[in-house]
Amino acid sequence: MTNSRITAAQNQEIEDARSMTSVTRRTTVPAMEDLMYTMIPVLDHGYLRVIDYMGDDSAVIQAARTSYGRGTKHKQNDEGLIRYLLRHWHTTPFEMLEIKIAVKMPIITARQWIRHRHASVNELSARYSILDREFYVPDAKDLAAQSQTNKQGRGDLLTGEEATRVLDLLRDDANRNYDHYAWMLNEDQQGKIIDPNRKGLSRELARMNLTLATYTTWYWKVNVHGLMNFLRLRADHHAQYEIRVYAEVLLDIMRQWLPMTHNAFMDYRVNAISLSAQQIEAINMRLAGRDITPQNTSLTKREFDEMVASMPGLIKQA
Amino acid sequence: MTNSRITAAQNQEIEDARSMTSVTRRTTVPAMEDLMYTMIPVLDHGYLRVIDYMGDDSAVIQAARTSYGRGTKHKQNDEGLIRYLLRHWHTTPFEMLEIKIAVKMPIITARQWIRHRHASVNELSARYSILDREFYVPDAKDLAAQSQTNKQGRGDLLTGEEATRVLDLLRDDANRNYDHYAWMLNEDQQGKIIDPNRKGLSRELARMNLTLATYTTWYWKVNVHGLMNFLRLRADHHAQYEIRVYAEVLLDIMRQWLPMTHNAFMDYRVNAISLSAQQIEAINMRLAGRDITPQNTSLTKREFDEMVASMPGLIKQA
Amino acid sequence: MTNSRITAAQNQEIEDARSMTSVTRRTTVPAMEDLMYTMIPVLDHGYLRVIDYMGDDSAVIQAARTSYGRGTKHKQNDEGLIRYLLRHWHTTPFEMLEIKIAVKMPIITARQWIRHRHASVNELSARYSILDREFYVPDAKDLAAQSQTNKQGRGDLLTGEEATRVLDLLRDDANRNYDHYAWMLNEDQQGKIIDPNRKGLSRELARMNLTLATYTTWYWKVNVHGLMNFLRLRADHHAQYEIRVYAEVLLDIMRQWLPMTHNAFMDYRVNAISLSAQQIEAINMRLAGRDITPQNTSLTKREFDEMVASMPGLIKQA
Amino acid sequence: MTNSRITAAQNQEIEDARSMTSVTRRTTVPAMEDLMYTMIPVLDHGYLRVIDYMGDDSAVIQAARTSYGRGTKHKQNDEGLIRYLLRHWHTTPFEMLEIKIAVKMPIITARQWIRHRHASVNELSARYSILDREFYVPDAKDLAAQSQTNKQGRGDLLTGEEATRVLDLLRDDANRNYDHYAWMLNEDQQGKIIDPNRKGLSRELARMNLTLATYTTWYWKVNVHGLMNFLRLRADHHAQYEIRVYAEVLLDIMRQWLPMTHNAFMDYRVNAISLSAQQIEAINMRLAGRDITPQNTSLTKREFDEMVASMPGLIKQA
Repeated sequence: MTNSRITAAQNQEIEDARSMTSVTRRTTVPAMEDLMYTMIPVLDHGYLRVIDYMGDDSAVIQAARTSYGRGTKHKQNDEGLIRYLLRHWHTTPFEMLEIKIAVKMPIITARQWIRHRHASVNELSARYSILDREFYVPDAKDLAAQSQTNKQGRGDLLTGEEATRVLDLLRDDANRNYDHYAWMLNEDQQGKIIDPNRKGLSRELARMNLTLATYTTWYWKVNVHGLMNFLRLRADHHAQYEIRVYAEVLLDIMRQWLPMTHNAFMDYRVNAISLSAQQIEAINMRLAGRDITPQNTSLTKREFDEMVASMPGLIKQA
Repeated sequence: MTNSRITAAQNQEIEDARSMTSVTRRTTVPAMEDLMYTMIPVLDHGYLRVIDYMGDDSAVIQAARTSYGRGTKHKQNDEGLIRYLLRHWHTTPFEMLEIKIAVKMPIITARQWIRHRHASVNELSARYSILDREFYVPDAKDLAAQSQTNKQGRGDLLTGEEATRVLDLLRDDANRNYDHYAWMLNEDQQGKIIDPNRKGLSRELARMNLTLATYTTWYWKVNVHGLMNFLRLRADHHAQYEIRVYAEVLLDIMRQWLPMTHNAFMDYRVNAISLSAQQIEAINMRLAGRDITPQNTSLTKREFDEMVASMPGLIKQA
Repeated sequence: MTNSRITAAQNQEIEDARSMTSVTRRTTVPAMEDLMYTMIPVLDHGYLRVIDYMGDDSAVIQAARTSYGRGTKHKQNDEGLIRYLLRHWHTTPFEMLEIKIAVKMPIITARQWIRHRHASVNELSARYSILDREFYVPDAKDLAAQSQTNKQGRGDLLTGEEATRVLDLLRDDANRNYDHYAWMLNEDQQGKIIDPNRKGLSRELARMNLTLATYTTWYWKVNVHGLMNFLRLRADHHAQYEIRVYAEVLLDIMRQWLPMTHNAFMDYRVNAISLSAQQIEAINMRLAGRDITPQNTSLTKREFDEMVASMPGLIKQA
Repeated sequence: MTNSRITAAQNQEIEDARSMTSVTRRTTVPAMEDLMYTMIPVLDHGYLRVIDYMGDDSAVIQAARTSYGRGTKHKQNDEGLIRYLLRHWHTTPFEMLEIKIAVKMPIITARQWIRHRHASVNELSARYSILDREFYVPDAKDLAAQSQTNKQGRGDLLTGEEATRVLDLLRDDANRNYDHYAWMLNEDQQGKIIDPNRKGLSRELARMNLTLATYTTWYWKVNVHGLMNFLRLRADHHAQYEIRVYAEVLLDIMRQWLPMTHNAFMDYRVNAISLSAQQIEAINMRLAGRDITPQNTSLTKREFDEMVASMPGLIKQA
C-alpha cells in the first residue's frame, strides 16, 4: 500500500521517527502513541499521519477546574463535566488540547480545508519545490453526476461509456499537463537542467499548468475546539466526499484519543439537531394532538422534512 | 477594457450600484467614494473593486485617544500620533478601520492570498456555479526563467522559441482542460443539460480538471492592521509578481484613503529595515573607523549585503 | 440624565461629531444614522454609543452571492437566503458587516466582555490617564443573594438592613479607595502636583487601589458574526446582569440595523434549542405514546427539565 | 517559600502530578520535563508553573521543511534555517509549538495579559468560587513615583513617610475591602452560611468590592509565535514591572526549551532595532562624513536619541 504513496526513503524516515522514545511527565495516550507517524492512506494517493498531540480528556477538566494538579476526580464526574461544557458551548477548555498532523490531499480538498482559519499550516511550496506526478482520479464508485435537487451535491453514479470517458479525460489531462509542466521547468527532481539550450520556466509560473487534482502536502495543527468545528462541517454528509474521507479519519482518531469528549461531541453536535422557534412550536402543536404540515407550521418544506427525518412520529399517528 | 473582463450586464450592475447615494454621519473620504465599485484591471482578466470602507486617518486617532467625539486635534499632532503608534507596534487603533473589496485573480494567486487568516472571505463556489473560460496567461514581459540564485525567485526572461512554446502550452492546456470540463458537466451556463443521453459529472468533481491558472472571484474584507501585514509581505519585491500587482493596487488605494497612515507605513515598514544585534555591532565597528566584512562581523553574506544595500557608505571610504 | 455620565464639554464633542454629514455611495441605514454618537445610558454611570457601522442586510447577500453590484433580489428571496445561511452555520457573509461602539462599563463587566477575542478594543489606559470617581453601585432591585441552586447565579433579593448595609459598604469602600488613589497620585485631573512635598505614586501602581466596580471606557469593534456570538452568550438569562444590560441594548440596535438578520438570529439561535441525540430519542418515545421521565430517557434532570420547559406537552397528556 | 503561596494540599497535588511518567514517541526536552508542574514564585504571592508543552527546535524545522520524519539535518543547517525564518517574518513554523502554563498574578497584570488574543485562557471564576485573601503589595524597592517625562512610566522611588503611608494604604484598603467582601458573602470557604439571619450577597456581585491588586489564577496556552509577540512587548523595559517579571520568567523558560529559537529571537527581535527610512538616511549622512542632529535629519528627538542609544558612534568623532 505504502509504495504507491511514499518512497522507501520516506518510509525509512518515518520508521526512524517512530523508533525514538523518551520518558515524559506529560499526559500520554497509548492509542495516540501507536498512531504516531504511521501513514493512514486516504483516497488514491493521499494520507494522514499524526505527528504530535498535547493533552487528553483530563486536560479539558484540569483547565475547566483551574486545578493545581492533574485535576481529575471520579471518572463519572469528569465525564459529566465534559458533557456540561460541550452542551453549554464552553470552548476554552477544549482549546487546551492540540493535534498536529501531516496530510497529503488533492488541491481541491486543500482549498476547502484552508478555509478553517483557526489552525496553523505549513504547506509544501511549489514556488520552491517541484511537485510529484500525483493527482487524484476518483474511484469508479465515487464518480457521481450532478444532483438534480441540490446545486452543491451529487446525484446518481455515472456509468458505462460516459464514466469511462470522464475517467480517461481526468487522467489524460492531468498527465499531459504534468508532462508540459516538467518540460517547461526543464529540470529533473534534483534540480539539474535537462536541456542546456533552454532556460526553463520558473517554478512559480510553471505550476500554473497543473490541474486542481494535483496532490499537495502540509502540516496542520489545530486545537480540539477548532477540530470539532472542522469535523462538524466536514464529517457531515453535506461535505464533499473528497474532504469528508479525511474528516472521517480524524473523527476516528479523536474517538481513540479523547473517548469522553468524542462521545459528548457525537451526542451534542454530530447526532444533535437545532430546533428553531418555529420548529419548537410545531412540535408543541403535535404534542397537543394536532396534525402538522409545512403549511400550518409556517416552516419551509426543507425545515419540515429535516425535523421529521429525526422525529418520524411527528407525522405518524400517536 | 471592461468587455474582456466583465459582461455588459455586470457592468450595468456596477453602474447601478455606483449611482445610489445617501447622506451619512459616518466619516467619508472623497477619493474612496470615487473609487467605489469601479473596476481596476489587474493582469489579463483580473480586477479589484472597492465595495465598502469604514473610517479614515481620524478614526485611528479617535480610538487611540478613546475620544468622545471625532477625536482629532491639530493635523500635526494627529500625524505625530499615527507615526508614534506605528513605530511602537500598536496595532489595535489600526484595526478600527476596514476595507472590503471584490477581487478576480488566478487560483495560484488566491492560494497565496488566503494564507492571510485575519480577513473575511466569500469566494465564488465552483461546487455551486460553473466557472467562466478565463485563465491567466503571462504577458511575454513577465515570462521569467527560474532564478539560479534564489530557489523561490525569477531570473532572466524567456525568449524566442522557448517563450513561444511555453505560452502556447499554457494557453492550449488551459483551453483543452476547460473544453473537457464543459463536456463533463454537460450543462450550459444556465444549467441546461446539453446532451440528454448523458448525466453529466457533478460540478464539484468536474472542476478538478481546471488548471491553477483559472480565475476565481471573492469578496475580501480586512482591517488596516491586517492590510498592512498583507502589503508588507505581498507588495515586497520577494512576492510573486502575480500577487504583487494586486498588492500594489491596494497600496495605492491606501495612499488615497489614509494619507497619514500610508506615509507612516512607508517610512516605518516598507522603506525601513530591521537591524539584528550583529548588524548593529557591525555598524558600530564601522563608525569606530574599522572596515567591515561578512567575516569580521560574523554576518551571513546575505545579511551583510542587505545591510550594505541600504547603507552603501558602510563599505565605502568615509 | 447625561450630566451624571458625561460633562458638558464631552456632550459638546458628541454634538459636534453628530452635526457633520457627508454624501456617500456606501449603504446607509437611517435608524443607525439616528443612533450615531448618541449616548444610550446603561447602569448607573455607564453608556453605549454607536460610532460607526459598515453594511446592512443587503451586504450579507451581496457577499454570499459574490455579486457584481449590490446583489439583492426580491425581498423574500433575500430573507430566505439570510435564514438559510444562519440555519446552516455559514459565518463568512455575516463577517462582512461591522459595528463600532464606545462603551463605559464597570471593570467586572469589562473583564467578561474582553473574553470575546474576535473583536478590536482600545481601552482608556489608567497607566496614562487618571480615572474618574465613578463606580457601579447596584440598584436596590438588583441586589441579589447567592442562588442556592446555581453556583454562578443569583437568588432572592436582599432586603432590609442587610441590603442597606451592603450598599453602604460598596459605596463607602469604593469612595475611600478612590480618595486614597487620588492622595497617592498627588496630582489633580490636569496632572498638576498637589502637595509639592510629595512625589506621588505612579499612575500604573496607584490604580491598584481601585475596586472592580470602577468604570472604564473603550472602543469596541466587531463583525456581525462575532456580535451574534457575543449576544448569544451575553443576552442570555444565564449571563450576569451587569453585562446582560449592555447586550440587550446591542440586540436592540441590531434589530433596528439588520431586521432580517435579527429575525433569523432570534428564530435560529436565541429562541432555538439544541436537542442531543438522547433528547431526540426521548421525544420519539413520547410521540410513540409512552410517558417519559429523566430515568427512562437516561437524561440528566437538568437536560430533561430544559427540554420540557420548551415543550411542556412532553409531560402532559396528549 | 511555597507555604505563602499554596497550601500543603495544593503542593501535594503538584507532587502527585509530577510523579507520574510515561514513555512517549513525542519530542521531549529534559529541561522542560524538570520544570513541569514546579512552582516558580513571582511577585509576593504569584507563581508560574509549566503544565505542558509540545515540540522543540526541531519541530520548527520539521514543519518548515514539510518533512516525512523529524526533519532535522546538521545542527548548523537547522540553526541557519531557524534564523532565516525569524529574520524574514515567517510565522507559521513557530506556531507548530505550544506551551501551557498556570499563572497566579494580580488582576492589574491579568488585565494587560488578556489583551494578547492569540492564546487560550481558563480563568478561575469569582462568580463561581470565593477568592482567597491575597493581593499584591509592591516591595519597597518597586514603589516608584510617576515619571515626569513619560506619562506611562515610573520615575524615582518613593521613600520615607510617603512610602510608608502608601504601602499602609494599599495593604489596609485591600484588607478592609476583603473583610467586607467576606462579610457580604456570608459564607465560609466551604460555602457554608455563617450568619443564618442573613442571605448573603451573590458572589458575582460581592467580588466588585475587591481591589485590582487581588490575585487571580488562570491556565494560559500559546504557540511560540504568540509567545514571542507577548515577550517582545512584555519583557521590554517599557512594560509595567508587574507583568515584566512574568515575561522574564517565560523568556528564561524559552531559553531552556528552545535554545536555537531563543538565540534568534534575541538577535532579531529583542536586541534588534528597526530603522525608519529617515533613520537610514541619517546614518548614510553620517557615513558620508557629515555630523547629524535631530534638526538636519528631520527626526523627532526621541527617534534620534533611540538610534544614538544603539549606535553611539553616530554622534562621536569618527
